[in-house]
Amino acid sequence: MNSRLFCFAGGKQGSWSVVKMAPVLGESLPEVARVDILNEDGPVEDAAWVLRGVTSNERYVTRGERNALVERQAAIGRPAITHAAIIPIRKNAQWWAMTQDERRAVFEDQSRHVKDSLKYLPAIARRLHHCRDLGGDEPFDFVTLFEYAAADSSAFEELVAMLRSTPEWKFVDREMDIRLVRDVYS
Amino acid sequence: MNSRLFCFAGGKQGSWSVVKMAPVLGESLPEVARVDILNEDGPVEDAAWVLRGVTSNERYVTRGERNALVERQAAIGRPAITHAAIIPIRKNAQWWAMTQDERRAVFEDQSRHVKDSLKYLPAIARRLHHCRDLGGDEPFDFVTLFEYAAADSSAFEELVAMLRSTPEWKFVDREMDIRLVRDVYS
Repeated sequence: MNSRLFCFAGGKQGSWSVVKMAPVLGESLPEVARVDILNEDGPVEDAAWVLRGVTSNERYVTRGERNALVERQAAIGRPAITHAAIIPIRKNAQWWAMTQDERRAVFEDQSRHVKDSLKYLPAIARRLHHCRDLGGDEPFDFVTLFEYAAADSSAFEELVAMLRSTPEWKFVDREMDIRLVRDVYS
Repeated sequence: MNSRLFCFAGGKQGSWSVVKMAPVLGESLPEVARVDILNEDGPVEDAAWVLRGVTSNERYVTRGERNALVERQAAIGRPAITHAAIIPIRKNAQWWAMTQDERRAVFEDQSRHVKDSLKYLPAIARRLHHCRDLGGDEPFDFVTLFEYAAADSSAFEELVAMLRSTPEWKFVDREMDIRLVRDVYS
């Protein structure tokens, strides 16, 4: 199996408890009690929904931006972290019809996606999963997983509000916001 | 099913006869007599190998380049066309570790991938399929399908030789070259 493939299964099991599930735009997903995040494919028993995605090469960042990100960012999976968010989005046909230079202009020149996100690192860790080219009829184009400490919850609210206010987000036509917590035993 | 998904099945059936199969770089694929090209997924009976890929948004071309391509290009599937080639390639880890601006610089500034291909249009039609983010363990990153008339065979040889001589091709670590013909009844 492709080690870049991740599976987000909503249902009655999994190490994350759902504290909030809300459609931001477009059709919602069924409410669930727990979410399991697996680094594999395969059927998930009793799941109300399953989102799949692969981590991949970055599509927009330049070398300078990558270096700035790598210098600051934390990896997903820090053991003491208790809070997470799963934000699946789909972009509209107009976005996908744009050429690379046009999408890059919206992503960074107009929306400052990287530049304005940098100050939230390393407190907020992020992993982007691509769904659009999996070959199936996926309900979303991307699933982003965020992890942060309870103390950084308000910084996270600020980050998502900032992203949703950008020109890039005018091309988003479906979005869910799923907030998770887990128990950490020290 | 995702209508952007295509399947290339090598075996004993299919509308295309194999006239040549050769590994250009790296491990070969088993020799077959025929190839079927399907706009769907699913198991293919008695296939010796199956390559899958999705058409997707372009990753490098600018608006100016797209306009120049669209103005000239022919679509895959012209009914009178008798010759085709399937060229699956895989790019190495160094390619995928580069940032977008670095890959674009190799693709066009150094290799003139679009600029030097334009003169072969519309005689040679091309469709690119992405395999890398399908979520499975795909043997190649891309499968490109080319179609051309018998009279344009030498132009096609020139095009593939030109591409293989570019700096971009230094990042290719596996490549097959599969040439096909079919009967066309007028």
